[in-house]
Amino acid sequence: MRIKLIIEYDGTNYAGWQRQLNGIGIQQVIEDALFKLTGEKTVVAGAGRTDAGVHALAQVAHFDTESTIPPDKFSFALNTMLPPDIRIKESSKAENGFHARFNAKGKCYIYRIYNGRHSSPLLRLTHAHIALPLNVDAMNKAAQLFVGKHDFVSFSASDRRKGSTVRTIYTCQVSGTGEEITVTVKGDGFLYNMVRIITGTLIEVGLGKRDLDSIKKALETRDRTLAGITAPANGLTLKEVYY
Amino acid sequence: MRIKLIIEYDGTNYAGWQRQLNGIGIQQVIEDALFKLTGEKTVVAGAGRTDAGVHALAQVAHFDTESTIPPDKFSFALNTMLPPDIRIKESSKAENGFHARFNAKGKCYIYRIYNGRHSSPLLRLTHAHIALPLNVDAMNKAAQLFVGKHDFVSFSASDRRKGSTVRTIYTCQVSGTGEEITVTVKGDGFLYNMVRIITGTLIEVGLGKRDLDSIKKALETRDRTLAGITAPANGLTLKEVYY
Repeated sequence: MRIKLIIEYDGTNYAGWQRQLNGIGIQQVIEDALFKLTGEKTVVAGAGRTDAGVHALAQVAHFDTESTIPPDKFSFALNTMLPPDIRIKESSKAENGFHARFNAKGKCYIYRIYNGRHSSPLLRLTHAHIALPLNVDAMNKAAQLFVGKHDFVSFSASDRRKGSTVRTIYTCQVSGTGEEITVTVKGDGFLYNMVRIITGTLIEVGLGKRDLDSIKKALETRDRTLAGITAPANGLTLKEVYY
Repeated sequence: MRIKLIIEYDGTNYAGWQRQLNGIGIQQVIEDALFKLTGEKTVVAGAGRTDAGVHALAQVAHFDTESTIPPDKFSFALNTMLPPDIRIKESSKAENGFHARFNAKGKCYIYRIYNGRHSSPLLRLTHAHIALPLNVDAMNKAAQLFVGKHDFVSFSASDRRKGSTVRTIYTCQVSGTGEEITVTVKGDGFLYNMVRIITGTLIEVGLGKRDLDSIKKALETRDRTLAGITAPANGLTLKEVYY
């Protein structure tokens, strides 16, 4: 039987979703818990990788099991074995042929910024700190340039590019009043580091260091050096996967 | 010169505000940073103690110094020496005769609850987890019973009681839709564990385990055993101190 999981995690102490040579992956922690629970060595396939320090409110994954544990009880059973920074929010029997990655139609990420003079102890794990004041209106205006079907090659890290670099962004919004600012990006898929580079570029707009034309140019010329910095991992959270 | 500090901290890894035998206090960490900065051994006096695991968005404290560092620069200088879970949000020259504790006219605490079936990795440090559904309307109705001037002896821990146990609560509100619930309590002062016992009692109301009359009775009889449980420390945050 194939089981579908919805998983929340605080990525601070992990090398990312996937098994890594240089640290523990969240996937591996869940696979180890499953082995303790069922005695089965199984692969927990996620909807997508998240980098070291990146969080998820609802990562989706699946695995196959011969166990007779009722599908909806896996969440409770696994949670007793998982560390408190990883929780299975829901487990269910997957529909026939379901694949967490191949069936994913889109994803929503949020990138959270704490825009105060000093960093915030209570938000430090989930919000990137930007000390200088950001112009949220200007950022949101610039964000609209990413909406639609574009070649995002200049907004991706070069080391993991395979196949097409064209993606469709459905919404890209910057909201917030005061010190907490959120960038919300929904799209049919994302290249490696794409949300963090989009956010880094929007931060440069918010600081008055970049105008809207420079974003159009970065998209058109497909030149990575014309896009912005890669915003830090800790601000990024995978919010939802669409099927 | 007397300097006033506004301090945010994540209390997870500390034994509380105050120096303790069994762990490091936040006060001590700031005093050590000040010693490194100025070479002075000085006491950083807080507006009030917070327990182990309790957080602050704006604890207020003062200290005396002979240093010539401009008052508003202490925040920046201290923050370079403090761990990321403690930040001085603001430093300024205190008004004549200012005392963080003695001059405090009141305080506002928030108690945050994550009311989902499974605990939340991303909220686990700042929100107490209650798995069974809470009736927020019933909790908010019950919360109004605490507003006003009452003897709160039955809503305090017995081991630190000194002097009058009468306090005035200005507002007590329970709000939230969905999984995040916040109890906000403002008052002229709080007995030891008072907000956590008020919240524990409101949680029992929210679970349908307790009616409003039982709260009236607990207040009237001054019997601690008639009040509710002490809610866990991690949900509590000192939000503001009034002068």
